[in-house]
Amino acid sequence: MITALAGGVGAARLLRGLVRVVAPTEVTAVVNTGDDTELHGLHISPDLDTVTYTLAGLNDDERGWGLAGETWEVMDSLERLGGQTWFRLGDHDLATHLFRTQRLADGATLSQVTAEISRALGVSVRLVPMSDDPVRTHLKLVDGPEVSFQEYFVGRRHAVAVESVRFAGAGTAVPAPGVLDAVADAEVVIVCPSNPIVSIGPLLAVPGIADGLTTRRRDVVAVSPIIAGAALKGPADRLLAELGHEPTVVGVARVYADFVGTLLVDEADAASADAVEACGVRCVVAPTIMHTPEHAAALASLLLDAGRASGTLRSVR
Amino acid sequence: MITALAGGVGAARLLRGLVRVVAPTEVTAVVNTGDDTELHGLHISPDLDTVTYTLAGLNDDERGWGLAGETWEVMDSLERLGGQTWFRLGDHDLATHLFRTQRLADGATLSQVTAEISRALGVSVRLVPMSDDPVRTHLKLVDGPEVSFQEYFVGRRHAVAVESVRFAGAGTAVPAPGVLDAVADAEVVIVCPSNPIVSIGPLLAVPGIADGLTTRRRDVVAVSPIIAGAALKGPADRLLAELGHEPTVVGVARVYADFVGTLLVDEADAASADAVEACGVRCVVAPTIMHTPEHAAALASLLLDAGRASGTLRSVR
Repeated sequence: MITALAGGVGAARLLRGLVRVVAPTEVTAVVNTGDDTELHGLHISPDLDTVTYTLAGLNDDERGWGLAGETWEVMDSLERLGGQTWFRLGDHDLATHLFRTQRLADGATLSQVTAEISRALGVSVRLVPMSDDPVRTHLKLVDGPEVSFQEYFVGRRHAVAVESVRFAGAGTAVPAPGVLDAVADAEVVIVCPSNPIVSIGPLLAVPGIADGLTTRRRDVVAVSPIIAGAALKGPADRLLAELGHEPTVVGVARVYADFVGTLLVDEADAASADAVEACGVRCVVAPTIMHTPEHAAALASLLLDAGRASGTLRSVR
Repeated sequence: MITALAGGVGAARLLRGLVRVVAPTEVTAVVNTGDDTELHGLHISPDLDTVTYTLAGLNDDERGWGLAGETWEVMDSLERLGGQTWFRLGDHDLATHLFRTQRLADGATLSQVTAEISRALGVSVRLVPMSDDPVRTHLKLVDGPEVSFQEYFVGRRHAVAVESVRFAGAGTAVPAPGVLDAVADAEVVIVCPSNPIVSIGPLLAVPGIADGLTTRRRDVVAVSPIIAGAALKGPADRLLAELGHEPTVVGVARVYADFVGTLLVDEADAASADAVEACGVRCVVAPTIMHTPEHAAALASLLLDAGRASGTLRSVR
């Protein structure tokens, strides 16, 4: 069994590759819910949906988020009413939120609803939210208010400096059923190339998950989302720097050192391999950019090899 | 100023006629919210929406409910997910519910949201929910459970016998701002041809409204929704009978006698005029079926004449 810790787009791409080299039913993805939000009375779980849609083959690869062939009838009318449309919700995507919200109102847990949506869309990977309890990522802006993740990420297009990040509710949240076992029992635990601060960070803030990872440290393999000092997409580089970390693979190695045994860095960062290992993290250098599902599958293979060989192999350069 | 007590479709049609013979800004419609429901986490106000859409000229006259040119993208996807789709919500209609739900979550009252939606859709009639407090119509079925109005009306297509009706929350509900004044200050109060039990009934159950009407009884004019012993549409006839009332214009006169001075009955019921007047209600006989907006305007004119002449005129046959 393979367990992956997942944020949104980067994680979804890696998982799409992973299921080409491992049976989907052997994979558990523990997904960040710190980005979840309530809008129009609906419970929206962006990372869970991104991973689900991508694994179902329904995602819009070009736009980079949401569903392919999406329509926007509801948003058009909402705009006419003067409603909030900065967070664009397509019609088909809205159906997911309506379904989730109704089922939660019925008393189902987020785990149960996630499983129901996966099943309905034909996804065989076991998708589990990090917690059934609400955890919400809040960012205090430099010279500004504290805002929700979506207000930062979508509303302000992450073009504002962040002073600090907190995960409201994390302290009392309980890992969703199966999460700790998935970490404890996995042959390899993969930390997807997601934002270390706001995608992987919330998972680590849920009591028990970081400890579980630390116990399995030797078998935990991460992919650096930072390549040559920059994030491929999103604000990971700036967030790292703003919060006092080096926005490089070395910075990522330091942030992850407690619970990651192996860090896969891109070939562009080959020169930093020694510095990564100086953090006590084994470094594997390889192509990490997932231009196509084939690249993602190759990357997934490398991660599995690195994780499986963790006891015997030394660094791969 | 003219005030109308309104349910859904029948009321909307009459109001569409009324605004042809009175300036829309002179009209206040107090609308039933006993049909309101929460579905998918959204606050749905069917009667308010029917009246708003119809006055905005956006309603689907042929289907009899919802918006013209509606699309069903969300329902299609919700069906695929195995969600609840028995209560059909079109994409453009959904935008109204998203807007309302968000604004209520922001702390706005239902009155405020109703005014915002009216304004956005260009409706000049003042639309007021009967109360900003939740009142929910529940129906105890014969040999069955107690169900919500929508479960009775849409879910079971009102094809089940009802033992009793109650308006949950009505006892402690407060009339929405302006409702009592609208009744007290109106030149004429019109009781629209809506279901006496489940459309007008909830309004009467909100403390203060029935008393206000009784005080103005002489100027209150109702249209019978029952013609020749049958409802034009919907279960008004059966509900009246099931709850022990005569499903005729005489039954309607008896139900309304406390607060209605004049009852307009269809020409088909001319023979019942004496029996209506025996209930202490002045009877006016006229064509009441609103085949077209022109018919609705003619009916509205008659109602205004009947109301305005209430002190001087006798029955019109």
